[in-house]
Amino acid sequence: MDSDRSGVLTEVSVQEPKANPKGKAVAGAAPPPPVVISSKVTTTSNPKGGWRRGFAIFDLVLRLCGIAVALAATAIMGTTQQTLPFFTQFFVIANAIASGYLVLSLPFSIICIVRPHLRGLRIVLIVLDTLMVGLAMAAAASAATIADLAQNGNSNANWAPICQQFDDFCQSITEAVQSSFAVAVIFILLVVFSSLSLRRN
Amino acid sequence: MDSDRSGVLTEVSVQEPKANPKGKAVAGAAPPPPVVISSKVTTTSNPKGGWRRGFAIFDLVLRLCGIAVALAATAIMGTTQQTLPFFTQFFVIANAIASGYLVLSLPFSIICIVRPHLRGLRIVLIVLDTLMVGLAMAAAASAATIADLAQNGNSNANWAPICQQFDDFCQSITEAVQSSFAVAVIFILLVVFSSLSLRRN
Repeated sequence: MDSDRSGVLTEVSVQEPKANPKGKAVAGAAPPPPVVISSKVTTTSNPKGGWRRGFAIFDLVLRLCGIAVALAATAIMGTTQQTLPFFTQFFVIANAIASGYLVLSLPFSIICIVRPHLRGLRIVLIVLDTLMVGLAMAAAASAATIADLAQNGNSNANWAPICQQFDDFCQSITEAVQSSFAVAVIFILLVVFSSLSLRRN
Repeated sequence: MDSDRSGVLTEVSVQEPKANPKGKAVAGAAPPPPVVISSKVTTTSNPKGGWRRGFAIFDLVLRLCGIAVALAATAIMGTTQQTLPFFTQFFVIANAIASGYLVLSLPFSIICIVRPHLRGLRIVLIVLDTLMVGLAMAAAASAATIADLAQNGNSNANWAPICQQFDDFCQSITEAVQSSFAVAVIFILLVVFSSLSLRRN
């Protein structure tokens, strides 16, 4: 039985033949009909489907926001001057993967709205979203490190700040870092709300 | 039926005809119906508690491994020459937080072994582990970026590699990065197995 339905089924049957009050012989009489008291109470309420569906709708909205933000991060970094090829490439690829995953996950999110009690699908989404938390956070942190070095440099390593020379790049990478952190936070929220929707009622 | 309840179905039927008070013969009367006492007890035990407990034990082992690896990462980076103060600090603090969280989560992991059906506690652990995935991955990615720059430099930004000068630092940061990525992977595995243990039977 589904854990979300509290099914209560009670059935009581009592069969009690009346005694012959006078004790006289009743020739050929059929035995008295049994008294049957049947009480059947069936309660199949599902009061908590609502919040599950609410979480599922919120999940879909978050994914749509995530697609927009991840695509923005990809576009911002992808269209900048490629000053730091390796990091830019990793960042663009990671955010493109995040966008693609979010698009592909939309149908499953919609299925979770239609059938909010599907636990297996939700668990699959939690696992994949967690991997995406790692990917998005790695891209964001890596880009943030580069952005900080570009802005401030590092005197110990003799790395001079480059934002005087590449002002456009520094502007782009700052926006891209913010977007990428936002994507990571969105994935964390997705995991949190998916987990909460696995609560028992 | 819910996996966490051992279903007990008890059915008792008592059919007891009243005695003829005068004890006279009742010619042609139907024979008194037999007294039937039926007691039916069906116990549906939970045969799947085993894998849940197995996951919980694996969870505890993973956390113990995670503590060792995170402490190693913290120690390696914390005892190196602080060539890049900000990143070193962030890395050390992040891994120290991860170690501390893992230590604090041990009692709850043990509770999950004793009571493998506690769903709420498991969900709390999933949420916190997910946050730790983000933290550990950010520390690892940031350190990996610095390690790569220290190793290879970046010609576009005129950042020279520094591993010739700071060989000890480069050795340390490489080990620390590997440890920190291992910590992040451990957290991802924790989330995955916790999610799987929320499956319905």
